[in-house]
Amino acid sequence: MTIPRPITKLIDHFQRLPGIGPKTAQRLVFELLHYPVAEIKKFSEALIDLKENTHLCSVCKSVAEDDICAVCQDQMRDKSTIAVVSGPLDVLAIEKTGYRGVYHVLHGVIDPLNNIGPDDIFISGLLDRLRDTSTIEIILATNTSMEGESTAMYISRLIREEGYDDSKIKLTRLARGLPVGGDIEYADDVTLQRALEGRYSF
Amino acid sequence: MTIPRPITKLIDHFQRLPGIGPKTAQRLVFELLHYPVAEIKKFSEALIDLKENTHLCSVCKSVAEDDICAVCQDQMRDKSTIAVVSGPLDVLAIEKTGYRGVYHVLHGVIDPLNNIGPDDIFISGLLDRLRDTSTIEIILATNTSMEGESTAMYISRLIREEGYDDSKIKLTRLARGLPVGGDIEYADDVTLQRALEGRYSF
Repeated sequence: MTIPRPITKLIDHFQRLPGIGPKTAQRLVFELLHYPVAEIKKFSEALIDLKENTHLCSVCKSVAEDDICAVCQDQMRDKSTIAVVSGPLDVLAIEKTGYRGVYHVLHGVIDPLNNIGPDDIFISGLLDRLRDTSTIEIILATNTSMEGESTAMYISRLIREEGYDDSKIKLTRLARGLPVGGDIEYADDVTLQRALEGRYSF
Repeated sequence: MTIPRPITKLIDHFQRLPGIGPKTAQRLVFELLHYPVAEIKKFSEALIDLKENTHLCSVCKSVAEDDICAVCQDQMRDKSTIAVVSGPLDVLAIEKTGYRGVYHVLHGVIDPLNNIGPDDIFISGLLDRLRDTSTIEIILATNTSMEGESTAMYISRLIREEGYDDSKIKLTRLARGLPVGGDIEYADDVTLQRALEGRYSF
């Protein structure tokens, strides 16, 4: 049996999304067949809208509706602390913690195996910001993966080489340790080791 | 922080799809942000295309590009055997087995708890088909769930009441038993019981 072309075409598009396999894509498309036309039209428009009405914030490269994002526009945010993150989803995650500083979104990490070098992510914009503002602390909030670590390392070296020493700009990384609610029994060796090293007085 | 409206709107649309939660929807949309405009445009058009260029086959109610689906148009298919299924995904699954009969797609099952009665699914169309063609067997291939069972029961009673007795139309259900490659040890009681009842000479 040949599946109608409009169906296979849409399945194809869904399948290209991360974490969506052929079976899921099929299920989604056949579900969409039952949707009212108006609903599908709105979905279709929302897709176009996503590209046409979002920009990268000209300051922090986070995703914004205007030229400057809501965080950078906010007068109440502490502009002296910049959290450097690899993607906009990290911004959302950190926002939930009540963090009051600002961000710098790299849109990737340095990853030589996948041909992503320092010039392929938004590192230079960060250095420009340091010249303009009175930054006191930079939290290198990239992931704890190999690529995240080396990106943090690279940026910290770059900042030091630019002449910002520890008295001018403090560089920090997020703490490692047991996840809250996590069992010691199930923690991996490296995490447990870091948790021991970072133990605090109680 | 306020997430730009075009993003939340699209997240909303993805979230309404089955099996896609808020986290997954978010991940998908932020991934789409990195897509080239042309790719997004095609995705958007494919959505519209899905509704505009697919119809229900006028014979079997399966999804078709033309008025009559590929299976019903195929002269090589055995028109005397109809597999009654609850949705078009079941057609795809059964097609993979090499089944050579035709289908009748109900687009749902009788489900009183969710207010779906016999008139809400395509049962009457099946009876019309029986009048026109020389059907010999109807495979009631609805799921083995409570709703699937009672839908099969309802349809079989309806067919018998229409005067098609066993000599005219054979009614069958798919066999129950151990899944191929399945362990007896892990089979549930009911499945194992059905497997015993349906045991075959070896």
